[in-house]
Amino acid sequence: MLFTEEYLHRVATEIFLACGAPANEAAIVSGELVETSLMGIDSHGVIRIPEYVDKVQDGTITPGAVTTIVKQTPTTAVVDGHWNFGAICARNAAELARAKAATQGVASVLLTNCPHVGRLGASVQWLAEQGFISLATACGTRFAHWVTPWGGCEGRLATNPIAYGIPTRHDPIVLDMSTSMIAEGKIRSLLQQGKPVPAGCIQDAAGHPTTDPTHFYGPPQGTILPFGSEYGYKGFALGLLVEILGRTLAGYSVAEEGNSYRLGNGVSLTVISPDAFCGLENFRSLMDELSGYVTSSAPAPGHDRVIMPGELDFRSKAYRALHGIPVADQTWNAIVGAARKVGVAVAAPAVSAISQADVAGHGY
Amino acid sequence: MLFTEEYLHRVATEIFLACGAPANEAAIVSGELVETSLMGIDSHGVIRIPEYVDKVQDGTITPGAVTTIVKQTPTTAVVDGHWNFGAICARNAAELARAKAATQGVASVLLTNCPHVGRLGASVQWLAEQGFISLATACGTRFAHWVTPWGGCEGRLATNPIAYGIPTRHDPIVLDMSTSMIAEGKIRSLLQQGKPVPAGCIQDAAGHPTTDPTHFYGPPQGTILPFGSEYGYKGFALGLLVEILGRTLAGYSVAEEGNSYRLGNGVSLTVISPDAFCGLENFRSLMDELSGYVTSSAPAPGHDRVIMPGELDFRSKAYRALHGIPVADQTWNAIVGAARKVGVAVAAPAVSAISQADVAGHGY
Repeated sequence: MLFTEEYLHRVATEIFLACGAPANEAAIVSGELVETSLMGIDSHGVIRIPEYVDKVQDGTITPGAVTTIVKQTPTTAVVDGHWNFGAICARNAAELARAKAATQGVASVLLTNCPHVGRLGASVQWLAEQGFISLATACGTRFAHWVTPWGGCEGRLATNPIAYGIPTRHDPIVLDMSTSMIAEGKIRSLLQQGKPVPAGCIQDAAGHPTTDPTHFYGPPQGTILPFGSEYGYKGFALGLLVEILGRTLAGYSVAEEGNSYRLGNGVSLTVISPDAFCGLENFRSLMDELSGYVTSSAPAPGHDRVIMPGELDFRSKAYRALHGIPVADQTWNAIVGAARKVGVAVAAPAVSAISQADVAGHGY
Repeated sequence: MLFTEEYLHRVATEIFLACGAPANEAAIVSGELVETSLMGIDSHGVIRIPEYVDKVQDGTITPGAVTTIVKQTPTTAVVDGHWNFGAICARNAAELARAKAATQGVASVLLTNCPHVGRLGASVQWLAEQGFISLATACGTRFAHWVTPWGGCEGRLATNPIAYGIPTRHDPIVLDMSTSMIAEGKIRSLLQQGKPVPAGCIQDAAGHPTTDPTHFYGPPQGTILPFGSEYGYKGFALGLLVEILGRTLAGYSVAEEGNSYRLGNGVSLTVISPDAFCGLENFRSLMDELSGYVTSSAPAPGHDRVIMPGELDFRSKAYRALHGIPVADQTWNAIVGAARKVGVAVAAPAVSAISQADVAGHGY
């Protein structure tokens, strides 16, 4: 079914309000999930609503919890999200980092006690929209250590994404990449569909390459390879940096971590104000020149043109804002079910939903 | 031939002194080149001495030039290396960044007017040895734009390395990786040897995959692919970040850049003091726990054990410090020739050089 942005936002907001979130926080969580769906990143969009409701109900997420500062200097901070929604913890950390970078030129903020942070790119995008350059990392708990170090066959890191956001005169440039060859959720989805995993992504428990998702899940448990194929030592090194910045630097021991699922995502944000260097408006102009130069490359066979990081997401956002957001029946039913759990009766959309058949040919 | 570290260091220092470098700077440049050779990274070691001498003689490098600060705040700076040796420009930038991070917690320094910076890992290693976490990037001039953006077939970026250094209780963890599939120098070397380039690294001018180095050099000129094989959009995005941090943020237009070969490497350094977070000594301990955990993974078939980033370089350094540094005859002759150009007669080593035949079986 196809829904408007406004309708999904209203439904999501009602659900999170019923979960106990303050109005402004319900709006932020809903806004990020709906924007992510608008961008075509359906795995991190409104599909997550039922999961978040379950986590509120089992006490893993604490709506309304106030983010506190554990330690800070004018340029740095360690903040404790106290298990509010990941989007709220991350926004609070980003707001603090922005305020510090605005006065100090550069800032580095670490976020602890944060559940699944959602789309990491949302934080760097928000910072770019405020006129700041930022680099963000998010490491997972030991329970998500499916990724083997290069040359190994046991999981020692999570899929540990890296994101950056760059202001321009137009949409920001946004990268959001995992440091592994594939996400665990994607392997699970391929297993359910009875499909093989692309070659070069996973190993069985003995470290032999495989494309069979059942060899990954075991038992015994297999592993995901670090990003980079035959140069996977680079992806391993990047994933290791994400662990160091998000967890070790905040003072957590990997030995202790095994005892607490509640460590959630360890997030680091490094924020730079262009005003401390060439000046924001000058930087925006120079970025547009750079984008123009980079995308002026002729396309290689099989490509229409060169695409800047994040450009496809913003294109999808514009398209879906106009033509509607497709939501699979199964996902929609789960959202309606989650709403019911917190006492929200989902009203039918004012404009009747367009059937899945109509979507064909709309470019989805 | 095999030489001792001390001998090569003395020869290099005499040459750079004769080039007009002040004593402390000649020692730093020599130290970095010899350490790089000790580490087995021969492409960036003493083999560069003749190139540096040529650049001093043609005016591209200005020994003794004083690094100046163009713009600064307590946490940030843009510095001008004034075309001293790259190692000196980078060391001065790193010292400034260290001093700022030591008092402010975090610092970001950009370096302009710097020739070939040498091994970027040397800067982050030095910072890690001083107890600081750092991230460094170095972009190349437009004349080195051999790397195509993802989906393109024209060069728009250089091989744009990223490096990081992390203090531990032992050798630091040091990553130094290019964001392309292969270095241009390596393609040139394969061309000279009449060997093919590994599959997936280069394209011809029309954007078709090739393994023939002559298709890369053309004319028409081909391109190097960004790092990441079928996920090369990630390597492209990382290379783009290196260009943005090293050049755009410092206020340089990519449009103007075509006019000046003298832009050299655009270097960025972001330095974090662990004392602003969990404390340096605590961080060192936690890092050793993390390294122990990561390397405790059983090896995959074909690997002896899991290796941390930079570990092989430090192992080679210890081995070569004990057993000597191998230098190819051609390289040695070029070094002796470069010495002669600046009026230095290279004295024979005190201990006679061991012949290449003796090297066999020494693990080189």
